[in-house]
Amino acid sequence: MGRTCIIGAGSSGVTVAKALKEAGQAFDIFEIGSQIGGMWRYGNDNGRSSCYASLHIDTSRPNLGYSDFPIDPKLPDFLSHRQFLEHLEAYAAAHGIPEKVTFNTRVESVVPEEGGYRVTLGSGEVRDYDRVVIATGHLTDTRQPDFPGTFNGESLHSHHYRTADPFIGKRVLVVGIGNSAVDIAVDLCRRAEHVTLSTRRSAWVMPKYLMGVPIDQWSGFLGRRLRLPSPMVRRIMAQLIKLGVGDQRRFGLPRPEHPMYREHATLSQELLPMIGHGYIDVKPNVAELRGDGVAFVDGSEAEYDAVIYATGYEVTFPFLDRWVFDPDLQLGELYRRMVVPAHPGLIHAGLVQPVGPTIPLVEVQGKWIAALASGAMTLPSREGMDAEIRAHRDYQRRVYVDSPRYVLEVDGKLYSGQMKADMASGVAG
Amino acid sequence: MGRTCIIGAGSSGVTVAKALKEAGQAFDIFEIGSQIGGMWRYGNDNGRSSCYASLHIDTSRPNLGYSDFPIDPKLPDFLSHRQFLEHLEAYAAAHGIPEKVTFNTRVESVVPEEGGYRVTLGSGEVRDYDRVVIATGHLTDTRQPDFPGTFNGESLHSHHYRTADPFIGKRVLVVGIGNSAVDIAVDLCRRAEHVTLSTRRSAWVMPKYLMGVPIDQWSGFLGRRLRLPSPMVRRIMAQLIKLGVGDQRRFGLPRPEHPMYREHATLSQELLPMIGHGYIDVKPNVAELRGDGVAFVDGSEAEYDAVIYATGYEVTFPFLDRWVFDPDLQLGELYRRMVVPAHPGLIHAGLVQPVGPTIPLVEVQGKWIAALASGAMTLPSREGMDAEIRAHRDYQRRVYVDSPRYVLEVDGKLYSGQMKADMASGVAG
Repeated sequence: MGRTCIIGAGSSGVTVAKALKEAGQAFDIFEIGSQIGGMWRYGNDNGRSSCYASLHIDTSRPNLGYSDFPIDPKLPDFLSHRQFLEHLEAYAAAHGIPEKVTFNTRVESVVPEEGGYRVTLGSGEVRDYDRVVIATGHLTDTRQPDFPGTFNGESLHSHHYRTADPFIGKRVLVVGIGNSAVDIAVDLCRRAEHVTLSTRRSAWVMPKYLMGVPIDQWSGFLGRRLRLPSPMVRRIMAQLIKLGVGDQRRFGLPRPEHPMYREHATLSQELLPMIGHGYIDVKPNVAELRGDGVAFVDGSEAEYDAVIYATGYEVTFPFLDRWVFDPDLQLGELYRRMVVPAHPGLIHAGLVQPVGPTIPLVEVQGKWIAALASGAMTLPSREGMDAEIRAHRDYQRRVYVDSPRYVLEVDGKLYSGQMKADMASGVAG
Repeated sequence: MGRTCIIGAGSSGVTVAKALKEAGQAFDIFEIGSQIGGMWRYGNDNGRSSCYASLHIDTSRPNLGYSDFPIDPKLPDFLSHRQFLEHLEAYAAAHGIPEKVTFNTRVESVVPEEGGYRVTLGSGEVRDYDRVVIATGHLTDTRQPDFPGTFNGESLHSHHYRTADPFIGKRVLVVGIGNSAVDIAVDLCRRAEHVTLSTRRSAWVMPKYLMGVPIDQWSGFLGRRLRLPSPMVRRIMAQLIKLGVGDQRRFGLPRPEHPMYREHATLSQELLPMIGHGYIDVKPNVAELRGDGVAFVDGSEAEYDAVIYATGYEVTFPFLDRWVFDPDLQLGELYRRMVVPAHPGLIHAGLVQPVGPTIPLVEVQGKWIAALASGAMTLPSREGMDAEIRAHRDYQRRVYVDSPRYVLEVDGKLYSGQMKADMASGVAG
């Protein structure tokens, strides 16, 4: 059924490529950098990795791997980025993917045309494809708050944070309370003179271990073994976590507005203890940058040598014109979180944010895309796709807080079940 | 009732000095270094501090301070050594202690003589006292295992460990599983290439927080509020801790031979998670040093760049002849853990190892010693003292594992109650 173009050879691109290869489908895969691995390659020469030296995967080993390529059980509960990259490299090599990748090649534009898509490469070369899989990730284009005033010290976005070395002995303000913010704040402990974490709306802190067992193994036990529905699993987990963590207000971290099972909690084993040891203090949002210091909205003020903005990312696709796909408006309007309904050969891979691991979902996405490519499965009508999108958004509003932050959120178990049912029936949806 | 000599101006010496001063008793206090603080002064020029840069006190703030000089509640749950030293300095200054200290002065010998003790200083000066309070601490003279073979890399005792800086990118073996061993192993994470913890008999790992509350506040609640007897508190705590920590064997740490409430557990919030993230691995005892590497008793072998021996300390008093007091034989033969029965003017302060904090006990010891000095309290006969020592040893054998490791162990609540009853009755014992 024609050729597929995959943009990006990170974990998503590699995973989709493997599925297409296994299904005997022709594809090209383009990667800006000189190696596979995407964000998991520390210092990736594609310039797009946010990986810091202390990064470890949040998902525990047994829940992380590919269904047909399990991770060496001798590895620890939580893999470092290097260990995960080695696993990804072994997976890619075992399926002959690296030799399929065209490295050092940027995709400049993707334009829908009659019956397909015209892809222009950095070299100027133009190729035509039946479909384009976008696997460029969503953690590259930095988002930064626009605080009034100016700051004299060093400012950088967490995307560019690598190690604590440049901050030895310094007073550092970390803005944000997502996983990166907290990982970086903890990484700075013992090295920086002091660390402040500034948060606008706080977050629920979830430990990585509960009673010595990785937390995702608890939810896996409740969900897969006991077959409890996901919303119930989330409610039970929220109670268990509160029992394990205690009252986070003891540590100066306000309780978020919404209950834990309706938010994306921040995973950190060490944040609360590090606050309790005086390495980190917590402040509300920044009111103003004031030269050598920062004023906070509670009226307090402190001096800092550096500010690190761990304030997340904009989802952007510079190779797509906004009339083709506008991420600011259409991120929530993807059929099965993948297909652009107006251009059904334009397919996003890995553009999801589950509470659990992304990799196993992308593995199913890859098979789903391969089923489309091989003709084993067909897409529903435009109306059918739009109906699925509406139903998904209704579900999300019921389950999560109704905020654009949650537009990429999926329930892994439910989502994976939907994709598998599509493939089994031969008609998506 | 005559003059007292205090040896050492660490936390114990300062605390006893304050009690004597408050009781209007004359005393001298000699300190090798140029400042007070003892082990709590990082880089103390008395050369006796084991303090490493990341050292934090294991006792939470509300349980740590002096009864009449509480710690600023704005300080974190667990104070850094610097914060604790600042508190100690404020306490000493408020009571006019530093101006009483003779700094840069070593005590060379203490010799019992008719009716008192002859103290010879480093300068050669000789002074006579009615009693001598030994407050030199028991964490200075390193104890090191005598493994066969030689090791080519760097070897040092934890006493000399300060920061992870010299170990950046190195493979480090830490021998031991006490609080220092585990603190140092955790401190090396993210900096060393890899850390191995080698342990002969393992230890129970106790977190610093349970459900977000410092663990000593749980035991305080059970013991002081609910007035449960200490052995019951220890049993309940052991169960709560097992619930919080889970099965430590998951992390490769064997279960110790004896139940938790009969051993001195190792306090660490981070050890198990750091093992789970692959920063630290656990090995049994060292069988042999083999040049660039080490062989373990399980037959495994690994290469290291450095070995850190966190294998504890010998208790020594170089200024005392062994016929006066032999620490190898007589540590367990101190009346009320303080008085040498054969030389009742020779009094140890701070020579105890409670599960909880030492400072509040030394505060009571100071008052007890001051009561002796002022004549408000008298010592029992030699027979009375020996009987108390036997009773204490019987109690210890019942409560703890019968091992010389536990010779300094006391039950803080019980011990403090005994000293207070002594003072109330006017006759110790």
